[in-house]
Amino acid sequence: MSGAEDGALVLFSGGQDSATCLAWALARFGRVETVGFDYGQRHRIELACRAGLRDGMAALRPDWAGRLGADHVLDAGVLRGLSGSALVSAAEITAPEGQLPSTFVPGRNLLFGTLAAAVAYGRGLRHLVLGVCETDYSGYPDCRDDTMKALQVALNLGMDARFVLHTPLMFVDKAGTWAMAAALGGAALVELIRVESHSCYEGDRTVLREFGYGCGSCPACELRARGFAAYRRLAAA
Amino acid sequence: MSGAEDGALVLFSGGQDSATCLAWALARFGRVETVGFDYGQRHRIELACRAGLRDGMAALRPDWAGRLGADHVLDAGVLRGLSGSALVSAAEITAPEGQLPSTFVPGRNLLFGTLAAAVAYGRGLRHLVLGVCETDYSGYPDCRDDTMKALQVALNLGMDARFVLHTPLMFVDKAGTWAMAAALGGAALVELIRVESHSCYEGDRTVLREFGYGCGSCPACELRARGFAAYRRLAAA
Repeated sequence: MSGAEDGALVLFSGGQDSATCLAWALARFGRVETVGFDYGQRHRIELACRAGLRDGMAALRPDWAGRLGADHVLDAGVLRGLSGSALVSAAEITAPEGQLPSTFVPGRNLLFGTLAAAVAYGRGLRHLVLGVCETDYSGYPDCRDDTMKALQVALNLGMDARFVLHTPLMFVDKAGTWAMAAALGGAALVELIRVESHSCYEGDRTVLREFGYGCGSCPACELRARGFAAYRRLAAA
Repeated sequence: MSGAEDGALVLFSGGQDSATCLAWALARFGRVETVGFDYGQRHRIELACRAGLRDGMAALRPDWAGRLGADHVLDAGVLRGLSGSALVSAAEITAPEGQLPSTFVPGRNLLFGTLAAAVAYGRGLRHLVLGVCETDYSGYPDCRDDTMKALQVALNLGMDARFVLHTPLMFVDKAGTWAMAAALGGAALVELIRVESHSCYEGDRTVLREFGYGCGSCPACELRARGFAAYRRLAAA
Protein backbone atom coordinates (compact mmCIF):
# COMPACT_ATOMS: atom_id res chain seq x y z
CA MET A 1 0.00 0.00 0.00
CA SER A 2 1.29 3.44 -0.91
CA GLY A 3 -0.22 6.92 -0.90
CA ALA A 4 -1.67 9.39 1.59
CA GLU A 5 -1.07 8.42 5.22
CA ASP A 6 -4.12 10.44 6.18
CA GLY A 7 -6.50 9.19 3.50
CA ALA A 8 -9.70 7.46 4.57
CA LEU A 9 -12.39 5.30 2.99
CA VAL A 10 -15.82 5.44 4.62
CA LEU A 11 -18.20 2.50 4.24
CA PHE A 12 -21.15 4.64 3.29
CA SER A 13 -24.59 3.08 2.91
CA GLY A 14 -26.66 6.26 3.05
CA GLY A 15 -28.07 5.44 6.50
CA GLN A 16 -27.85 7.61 9.62
CA ASP A 17 -24.83 5.80 11.05
CA SER A 18 -22.63 5.87 7.98
CA ALA A 19 -23.63 9.47 7.22
CA THR A 20 -22.42 10.45 10.70
CA CYS A 21 -19.22 8.47 10.05
CA LEU A 22 -18.67 10.41 6.82
CA ALA A 23 -18.86 13.70 8.73
CA TRP A 24 -16.55 12.26 11.41
CA ALA A 25 -14.01 11.35 8.73
CA LEU A 26 -14.29 14.70 6.94
CA ALA A 27 -13.46 16.41 10.24
CA ARG A 28 -10.28 14.30 10.65
CA PHE A 29 -8.65 13.12 7.44
CA GLY A 30 -7.06 14.99 4.56
CA ARG A 31 -8.74 12.94 1.85
CA VAL A 32 -12.01 11.06 2.26
CA GLU A 33 -13.51 8.65 -0.25
CA THR A 34 -16.70 6.62 0.10
CA VAL A 35 -17.73 3.11 -0.88
CA GLY A 36 -21.19 1.57 -1.09
CA PHE A 37 -22.47 -1.93 -1.81
CA ASP A 38 -25.28 -2.76 -4.16
CA TYR A 39 -26.74 -6.16 -3.32
CA GLY A 40 -30.33 -5.71 -4.36
CA GLN A 41 -31.28 -4.66 -0.84
CA ARG A 42 -34.97 -4.03 -0.26
CA HIS A 43 -34.32 -0.52 0.97
CA ARG A 44 -32.33 0.21 -2.14
CA ILE A 45 -33.48 3.80 -1.88
CA GLU A 46 -30.70 4.06 0.72
CA LEU A 47 -28.12 3.95 -2.09
CA ALA A 48 -29.87 6.84 -3.86
CA CYS A 49 -29.59 8.96 -0.68
CA ARG A 50 -25.81 8.82 -0.78
CA ALA A 51 -25.35 11.60 -3.36
CA GLY A 52 -27.59 14.02 -1.45
CA LEU A 53 -25.67 13.43 1.76
CA ARG A 54 -22.27 13.83 0.10
CA ASP A 55 -23.34 17.01 -1.71
CA GLY A 56 -24.96 18.36 1.43
CA MET A 57 -21.81 17.87 3.53
CA ALA A 58 -19.65 19.49 0.84
CA ALA A 59 -22.04 22.46 0.79
CA LEU A 60 -21.97 22.71 4.59
CA ARG A 61 -18.26 23.46 4.92
CA PRO A 62 -15.68 24.46 2.29
CA ASP A 63 -12.90 22.48 4.06
CA TRP A 64 -15.03 19.34 3.90
CA ALA A 65 -15.70 19.96 0.19
CA GLY A 66 -11.95 20.10 -0.41
CA ARG A 67 -11.41 16.74 1.31
CA LEU A 68 -14.29 14.78 -0.19
CA GLY A 69 -13.01 12.48 -2.94
CA ALA A 70 -14.32 9.71 -5.17
CA ASP A 71 -17.36 7.55 -4.50
CA HIS A 72 -17.21 3.82 -5.31
CA VAL A 73 -20.19 1.50 -5.64
CA LEU A 74 -19.43 -2.23 -5.75
CA ASP A 75 -21.72 -4.98 -6.96
CA ALA A 76 -22.22 -7.24 -3.93
CA GLY A 77 -24.98 -9.29 -5.53
CA VAL A 78 -23.23 -12.41 -4.26
CA LEU A 79 -24.98 -11.72 -0.93
CA ARG A 80 -28.30 -12.67 -2.49
CA GLY A 81 -27.15 -16.27 -2.74
CA LEU A 82 -25.98 -16.46 0.85
CA SER A 83 -29.15 -16.43 2.91
CA GLY A 84 -32.89 -16.23 2.95
CA SER A 85 -32.44 -12.88 4.63
CA ALA A 86 -35.44 -10.62 4.71
CA LEU A 87 -33.17 -7.70 3.89
CA VAL A 88 -32.70 -8.99 0.37
CA SER A 89 -35.92 -10.92 -0.27
CA ALA A 90 -39.64 -10.53 0.15
CA ALA A 91 -39.71 -12.65 3.31
CA GLU A 92 -41.22 -11.04 6.36
CA ILE A 93 -38.86 -9.13 8.60
CA THR A 94 -38.92 -10.60 12.07
CA ALA A 95 -36.70 -10.60 15.15
CA PRO A 96 -37.84 -13.50 17.36
CA GLU A 97 -36.95 -13.21 21.03
CA GLY A 98 -33.40 -14.42 21.67
CA GLN A 99 -32.65 -15.15 18.04
CA LEU A 100 -30.83 -13.26 15.37
CA PRO A 101 -33.29 -11.25 13.26
CA SER A 102 -34.20 -12.58 9.82
CA THR A 103 -32.25 -9.73 8.22
CA PHE A 104 -29.06 -11.54 9.24
CA VAL A 105 -26.62 -12.25 6.41
CA PRO A 106 -23.81 -14.18 8.10
CA GLY A 107 -20.63 -12.14 8.12
CA ARG A 108 -21.95 -9.32 5.97
CA ASN A 109 -19.71 -6.73 7.63
CA LEU A 110 -16.69 -9.02 7.25
CA LEU A 111 -17.42 -9.15 3.54
CA PHE A 112 -17.99 -5.39 3.26
CA GLY A 113 -14.85 -4.68 5.28
CA THR A 114 -12.77 -6.97 3.08
CA LEU A 115 -14.10 -5.48 -0.16
CA ALA A 116 -13.57 -1.96 1.21
CA ALA A 117 -9.98 -2.82 2.15
CA ALA A 118 -9.33 -4.02 -1.41
CA VAL A 119 -10.60 -0.66 -2.71
CA ALA A 120 -8.54 1.24 -0.13
CA TYR A 121 -5.47 -0.80 -1.10
CA GLY A 122 -5.86 0.24 -4.72
CA ARG A 123 -6.54 3.87 -3.81
CA GLY A 124 -3.68 4.15 -1.31
CA LEU A 125 -5.99 4.96 1.62
CA ARG A 126 -4.82 3.90 5.08
CA HIS A 127 -7.95 4.39 7.20
CA LEU A 128 -11.22 2.50 6.97
CA VAL A 129 -14.24 3.97 8.74
CA LEU A 130 -17.19 1.69 9.56
CA GLY A 131 -20.47 2.68 11.20
CA VAL A 132 -20.89 -0.62 13.05
CA CYS A 133 -22.23 -0.45 16.57
CA GLU A 134 -22.48 -2.89 19.47
CA THR A 135 -25.28 -0.97 21.14
CA ASP A 136 -27.63 -1.54 18.22
CA TYR A 137 -30.74 -3.52 19.12
CA SER A 138 -29.95 -6.37 16.77
CA GLY A 139 -26.91 -8.08 18.27
CA TYR A 140 -25.28 -8.88 14.94
CA PRO A 141 -21.97 -10.59 15.80
CA ASP A 142 -20.29 -8.97 12.80
CA CYS A 143 -20.87 -5.53 14.37
CA ARG A 144 -18.95 -6.28 17.55
CA ASP A 145 -15.69 -4.64 18.54
CA ASP A 146 -13.90 -8.01 18.86
CA THR A 147 -14.91 -8.88 15.29
CA MET A 148 -13.61 -5.60 13.90
CA LYS A 149 -10.29 -5.91 15.70
CA ALA A 150 -9.81 -9.47 14.45
CA LEU A 151 -10.78 -8.33 10.95
CA GLN A 152 -8.11 -5.60 11.03
CA VAL A 153 -5.47 -8.23 11.78
CA ALA A 154 -6.72 -10.59 9.05
CA LEU A 155 -6.85 -7.78 6.47
CA ASN A 156 -3.38 -6.50 7.29
CA LEU A 157 -1.85 -9.97 7.17
CA GLY A 158 -3.75 -10.94 4.02
CA MET A 159 -2.94 -7.74 2.12
CA ASP A 160 0.48 -7.06 3.61
CA ALA A 161 -0.84 -3.66 4.67
CA ARG A 162 -1.27 -1.44 7.74
CA PHE A 163 -4.92 -0.44 7.61
CA VAL A 164 -6.54 1.09 10.66
CA LEU A 165 -10.23 0.27 11.15
CA HIS A 166 -12.13 3.08 12.85
CA THR A 167 -15.54 2.47 14.41
CA PRO A 168 -16.54 5.79 15.99
CA LEU A 169 -20.07 4.58 16.80
CA MET A 170 -19.12 1.24 18.35
CA PHE A 171 -20.33 2.10 21.87
CA VAL A 172 -22.67 4.97 21.00
CA ASP A 173 -26.45 4.63 21.00
CA LYS A 174 -28.75 6.24 18.42
CA ALA A 175 -29.32 9.36 20.51
CA GLY A 176 -25.57 9.70 20.92
CA THR A 177 -25.11 9.38 17.17
CA TRP A 178 -27.35 12.41 16.61
CA ALA A 179 -25.41 14.27 19.33
CA MET A 180 -22.19 13.40 17.51
CA ALA A 181 -23.59 14.90 14.29
CA ALA A 182 -24.52 18.05 16.20
CA ALA A 183 -21.00 18.30 17.62
CA LEU A 184 -19.42 17.78 14.20
CA GLY A 185 -21.59 20.06 12.07
CA GLY A 186 -24.18 21.76 14.27
CA ALA A 187 -27.91 21.90 13.66
CA ALA A 188 -27.37 22.07 9.89
CA LEU A 189 -25.71 18.64 9.83
CA VAL A 190 -28.38 17.13 12.07
CA GLU A 191 -31.03 18.46 9.71
CA LEU A 192 -29.14 17.17 6.63
CA ILE A 193 -28.87 13.67 8.09
CA ARG A 194 -32.46 13.73 9.36
CA VAL A 195 -33.85 14.55 5.91
CA GLU A 196 -31.35 12.94 3.52
CA SER A 197 -30.31 9.71 5.24
CA HIS A 198 -32.46 6.59 5.08
CA SER A 199 -33.12 3.80 7.61
CA CYS A 200 -36.60 2.40 6.83
CA TYR A 201 -36.57 -1.29 5.84
CA GLU A 202 -39.66 -0.68 3.72
CA GLY A 203 -37.90 1.94 1.58
CA ASP A 204 -40.68 4.41 2.39
CA ARG A 205 -39.79 8.05 1.59
CA THR A 206 -43.27 9.49 1.20
CA VAL A 207 -43.85 11.05 4.64
CA LEU A 208 -41.31 13.27 6.45
CA ARG A 209 -41.71 12.44 10.13
CA GLU A 210 -39.98 13.98 13.15
CA PHE A 211 -37.06 11.52 12.75
CA GLY A 212 -36.92 11.74 8.95
CA TYR A 213 -38.52 9.79 6.13
CA GLY A 214 -39.84 6.27 6.73
CA CYS A 215 -42.88 4.07 7.27
CA GLY A 216 -42.67 4.70 10.99
CA SER A 217 -43.44 1.13 12.02
CA CYS A 218 -40.66 -1.21 10.82
CA PRO A 219 -37.90 -2.10 13.34
CA ALA A 220 -35.46 0.35 11.70
CA CYS A 221 -37.96 3.24 11.87
CA GLU A 222 -38.86 2.41 15.48
CA LEU A 223 -35.19 2.42 16.47
CA ARG A 224 -34.56 5.67 14.63
CA ALA A 225 -37.66 7.33 16.10
CA ARG A 226 -36.72 6.35 19.66
CA GLY A 227 -33.16 7.59 19.15
CA PHE A 228 -34.20 10.90 17.69
CA ALA A 229 -36.74 11.52 20.45
CA ALA A 230 -34.12 10.71 23.10
CA TYR A 231 -31.64 13.06 21.43
CA ARG A 232 -34.22 15.88 21.38
CA ARG A 233 -34.92 15.39 25.09
CA LEU A 234 -31.19 15.47 25.88
CA ALA A 235 -30.56 18.48 23.65
CA ALA A 236 -33.44 20.38 25.28
CA ALA A 237 -32.33 19.54 28.84
CA MET B 1 -24.43 -22.84 13.35
CA SER B 2 -26.09 -26.21 13.62
CA GLY B 3 -25.76 -29.48 11.76
CA ALA B 4 -23.12 -32.14 11.16
CA GLU B 5 -20.04 -31.74 13.34
CA ASP B 6 -18.05 -33.60 10.73
CA GLY B 7 -19.33 -31.80 7.65
CA ALA B 8 -16.82 -29.96 5.46
CA LEU B 9 -16.92 -27.38 2.69
CA VAL B 10 -13.99 -27.45 0.25
CA LEU B 11 -13.04 -24.29 -1.66
CA PHE B 12 -12.85 -26.02 -4.99
CA SER B 13 -11.56 -24.15 -8.03
CA GLY B 14 -10.82 -27.12 -10.27
CA GLY B 15 -7.05 -26.69 -10.01
CA GLN B 16 -4.54 -29.26 -8.79
CA ASP B 17 -4.37 -27.93 -5.24
CA SER B 18 -8.09 -27.76 -4.55
CA ALA B 19 -8.66 -31.13 -6.25
CA THR B 20 -6.15 -32.67 -3.85
CA CYS B 21 -7.92 -30.91 -0.97
CA LEU B 22 -11.23 -32.42 -2.08
CA ALA B 23 -9.75 -35.92 -1.91
CA TRP B 24 -8.18 -35.06 1.47
CA ALA B 25 -11.60 -34.00 2.78
CA LEU B 26 -13.39 -37.05 1.33
CA ALA B 27 -10.93 -39.25 3.20
CA ARG B 28 -11.72 -37.51 6.51
CA PHE B 29 -15.21 -36.04 6.81
CA GLY B 30 -18.65 -37.63 6.80
CA ARG B 31 -20.19 -35.08 4.45
CA VAL B 32 -18.25 -32.99 1.95
CA GLU B 33 -19.66 -30.15 -0.13
CA THR B 34 -17.78 -27.91 -2.57
CA VAL B 35 -17.90 -24.21 -3.42
CA GLY B 36 -16.46 -22.37 -6.43
CA PHE B 37 -16.27 -18.71 -7.39
CA ASP B 38 -17.11 -17.33 -10.79
CA TYR B 39 -15.40 -13.97 -11.28
CA GLY B 40 -14.84 -13.95 -15.01
CA GLN B 41 -11.37 -15.44 -14.55
CA ARG B 42 -9.34 -15.84 -17.73
CA HIS B 43 -8.82 -19.53 -17.10
CA ARG B 44 -12.56 -19.97 -16.69
CA ILE B 45 -12.15 -23.44 -18.11
CA GLU B 46 -11.01 -24.28 -14.58
CA LEU B 47 -14.63 -24.01 -13.41
CA ALA B 48 -15.72 -26.46 -16.09
CA CYS B 49 -13.18 -29.00 -14.82
CA ARG B 50 -14.88 -29.19 -11.43
CA ALA B 51 -17.65 -31.60 -12.46
CA GLY B 52 -15.19 -34.07 -14.02
CA LEU B 53 -13.07 -34.09 -10.89
CA ARG B 54 -16.06 -34.54 -8.56
CA ASP B 55 -17.52 -37.34 -10.72
CA GLY B 56 -14.11 -38.98 -11.05
CA MET B 57 -13.53 -39.05 -7.29
CA ALA B 58 -17.02 -40.46 -6.69
CA ALA B 59 -16.32 -43.19 -9.26
CA LEU B 60 -12.97 -43.96 -7.65
CA ARG B 61 -14.31 -45.07 -4.27
CA PRO B 62 -17.87 -45.90 -3.18
CA ASP B 63 -17.28 -44.46 0.32
CA TRP B 64 -16.24 -41.14 -1.23
CA ALA B 65 -19.33 -41.18 -3.45
CA GLY B 66 -21.51 -41.55 -0.36
CA ARG B 67 -19.87 -38.53 1.30
CA LEU B 68 -19.82 -36.13 -1.63
CA GLY B 69 -22.62 -33.59 -1.33
CA ALA B 70 -23.81 -30.42 -3.04
CA ASP B 71 -21.72 -28.12 -5.21
CA HIS B 72 -22.18 -24.36 -4.90
CA VAL B 73 -20.97 -21.76 -7.40
CA LEU B 74 -21.08 -18.13 -6.25
CA ASP B 75 -20.93 -15.06 -8.45
CA ALA B 76 -17.80 -13.21 -7.32
CA GLY B 77 -17.90 -10.72 -10.20
CA VAL B 78 -17.21 -7.98 -7.66
CA LEU B 79 -13.52 -8.97 -7.95
CA ARG B 80 -13.42 -7.54 -11.45
CA GLY B 81 -13.82 -4.05 -10.04
CA LEU B 82 -11.08 -4.45 -7.46
CA SER B 83 -7.88 -4.54 -9.47
CA GLY B 84 -6.26 -4.42 -12.84
CA SER B 85 -5.22 -8.01 -12.21
CA ALA B 86 -4.06 -9.97 -15.20
CA LEU B 87 -6.01 -12.93 -13.89
CA VAL B 88 -9.24 -11.23 -14.78
CA SER B 89 -8.24 -9.01 -17.71
CA ALA B 90 -6.31 -9.19 -20.92
CA ALA B 91 -3.24 -7.53 -19.41
CA GLU B 92 0.01 -9.41 -19.67
CA ILE B 93 0.82 -11.77 -16.81
CA THR B 94 4.09 -10.75 -15.21
CA ALA B 95 5.89 -11.34 -11.93
CA PRO B 96 8.64 -8.72 -11.62
CA GLU B 97 11.51 -9.59 -9.32
CA GLY B 98 10.66 -8.81 -5.71
CA GLN B 99 7.14 -7.62 -6.47
CA LEU B 100 3.77 -9.23 -6.21
CA PRO B 101 2.75 -10.69 -9.57
CA SER B 102 0.18 -8.82 -11.64
CA THR B 103 -2.35 -11.56 -10.93
CA PHE B 104 -2.64 -10.18 -7.40
CA VAL B 105 -6.17 -9.32 -6.31
CA PRO B 106 -5.70 -7.88 -2.82
CA GLY B 107 -7.22 -10.17 -0.21
CA ARG B 108 -8.84 -12.55 -2.68
CA ASN B 109 -8.55 -15.52 -0.33
CA LEU B 110 -9.96 -13.46 2.54
CA LEU B 111 -12.97 -12.76 0.36
CA PHE B 112 -13.31 -16.38 -0.78
CA GLY B 113 -12.91 -17.64 2.79
CA THR B 114 -15.58 -15.25 4.05
CA LEU B 115 -18.04 -16.18 1.30
CA ALA B 116 -17.37 -19.88 1.87
CA ALA B 117 -17.97 -19.47 5.60
CA ALA B 118 -21.34 -17.85 4.89
CA VAL B 119 -22.27 -20.86 2.74
CA ALA B 120 -21.00 -23.28 5.41
CA TYR B 121 -23.00 -21.40 8.03
CA GLY B 122 -26.18 -21.87 6.03
CA ARG B 123 -25.40 -25.53 5.31
CA GLY B 124 -24.41 -26.42 8.88
CA LEU B 125 -20.85 -27.42 7.91
CA ARG B 126 -18.15 -26.94 10.55
CA HIS B 127 -14.95 -27.46 8.56
CA LEU B 128 -13.59 -25.28 5.76
CA VAL B 129 -10.82 -26.71 3.58
CA LEU B 130 -8.62 -24.31 1.58
CA GLY B 131 -5.83 -25.22 -0.83
CA VAL B 132 -3.68 -22.21 0.03
CA CYS B 133 0.03 -22.75 0.25
CA GLU B 134 2.97 -20.73 1.57
CA THR B 135 5.49 -22.60 -0.52
CA ASP B 136 3.91 -21.43 -3.76
CA TYR B 137 6.21 -19.34 -5.93
CA SER B 138 4.05 -16.26 -5.80
CA GLY B 139 4.25 -15.06 -2.20
CA TYR B 140 0.62 -13.95 -2.01
CA PRO B 141 0.13 -12.64 1.54
CA ASP B 142 -3.43 -13.98 1.60
CA CYS B 143 -2.08 -17.55 1.25
CA ARG B 144 0.03 -17.41 4.41
CA ASP B 145 -0.63 -19.44 7.52
CA ASP B 146 -0.80 -16.31 9.71
CA THR B 147 -3.50 -14.88 7.45
CA MET B 148 -5.60 -18.04 7.59
CA LYS B 149 -5.38 -18.27 11.38
CA ALA B 150 -6.38 -14.62 11.76
CA LEU B 151 -9.23 -15.19 9.30
CA GLN B 152 -10.55 -18.11 11.35
CA VAL B 153 -10.76 -15.86 14.41
CA ALA B 154 -12.47 -13.05 12.47
CA LEU B 155 -14.99 -15.44 10.91
CA ASN B 156 -15.86 -17.12 14.19
CA LEU B 157 -16.31 -13.81 15.99
CA GLY B 158 -18.23 -12.27 13.10
CA MET B 159 -20.59 -15.22 12.60
CA ASP B 160 -20.77 -16.40 16.22
CA ALA B 161 -19.54 -19.78 14.97
CA ARG B 162 -16.83 -22.35 15.55
CA PHE B 163 -15.44 -23.01 12.09
CA VAL B 164 -12.14 -24.81 11.70
CA LEU B 165 -10.05 -23.73 8.70
CA HIS B 166 -7.96 -26.59 7.31
CA THR B 167 -5.05 -25.91 4.96
CA PRO B 168 -3.48 -29.32 4.26
CA LEU B 169 -1.14 -27.92 1.58
CA MET B 170 0.15 -24.92 3.56
CA PHE B 171 3.75 -26.16 3.80
CA VAL B 172 3.71 -28.68 0.95
CA ASP B 173 5.37 -28.02 -2.40
CA LYS B 174 3.89 -29.05 -5.74
CA ALA B 175 5.73 -32.39 -5.83
CA GLY B 176 4.45 -33.08 -2.33
CA THR B 177 0.92 -32.28 -3.44
CA TRP B 178 1.12 -35.02 -6.10
CA ALA B 179 2.54 -37.39 -3.48
CA MET B 180 -0.40 -36.55 -1.21
CA ALA B 181 -2.81 -37.46 -4.01
CA ALA B 182 -0.99 -40.77 -4.48
CA ALA B 183 -1.25 -41.51 -0.76
CA LEU B 184 -4.96 -40.65 -0.68
CA GLY B 185 -6.14 -42.43 -3.82
CA GLY B 186 -3.22 -44.19 -5.48
CA ALA B 187 -2.17 -43.93 -9.11
CA ALA B 188 -5.80 -43.61 -10.21
CA LEU B 189 -6.26 -40.37 -8.27
CA VAL B 190 -2.95 -38.95 -9.54
CA GLU B 191 -4.09 -39.73 -13.09
CA LEU B 192 -7.54 -38.18 -12.50
CA ILE B 193 -6.02 -34.95 -11.17
CA ARG B 194 -3.34 -34.90 -13.87
CA VAL B 195 -5.93 -35.09 -16.66
CA GLU B 196 -9.00 -33.39 -15.21
CA SER B 197 -7.60 -30.53 -13.12
CA HIS B 198 -6.55 -27.26 -14.68
CA SER B 199 -3.78 -24.80 -13.84
CA CYS B 200 -2.86 -23.02 -17.11
CA TYR B 201 -3.42 -19.25 -17.01
CA GLU B 202 -4.06 -19.28 -20.76
CA GLY B 203 -6.97 -21.73 -20.41
CA ASP B 204 -5.28 -24.05 -22.91
CA ARG B 205 -6.70 -27.59 -22.92
CA THR B 206 -5.68 -28.67 -26.42
CA VAL B 207 -2.48 -30.63 -25.72
CA LEU B 208 -2.13 -33.29 -22.99
CA ARG B 209 1.43 -32.95 -21.70
CA GLU B 210 3.24 -35.02 -19.10
CA PHE B 211 1.88 -32.79 -16.31
CA GLY B 212 -1.63 -32.51 -17.79
CA TYR B 213 -3.33 -30.05 -20.15
CA GLY B 214 -1.89 -26.55 -20.61
CA CYS B 215 0.09 -24.19 -22.82
CA GLY B 216 3.32 -25.36 -21.17
CA SER B 217 4.87 -21.91 -20.94
CA CYS B 218 2.80 -19.66 -18.64
CA PRO B 219 3.98 -19.39 -15.01
CA ALA B 220 1.23 -21.77 -13.80
CA CYS B 221 2.20 -24.44 -16.36
CA GLU B 222 5.90 -24.05 -15.56
CA LEU B 223 5.22 -24.49 -11.85
CA ARG B 224 3.01 -27.50 -12.50
CA ALA B 225 5.50 -29.09 -14.90
CA ARG B 226 8.40 -28.68 -12.44
CA GLY B 227 6.31 -30.12 -9.61
CA PHE B 228 5.14 -33.11 -11.61
CA ALA B 229 8.65 -33.89 -12.82
CA ALA B 230 9.98 -33.68 -9.26
CA TYR B 231 7.21 -35.97 -8.03
CA ARG B 232 8.01 -38.52 -10.76
CA ARG B 233 11.68 -38.50 -9.79
CA LEU B 234 10.82 -39.00 -6.11
CA ALA B 235 8.26 -41.73 -6.89
CA ALA B 236 10.80 -43.57 -9.06
CA ALA B 237 13.58 -43.33 -6.45
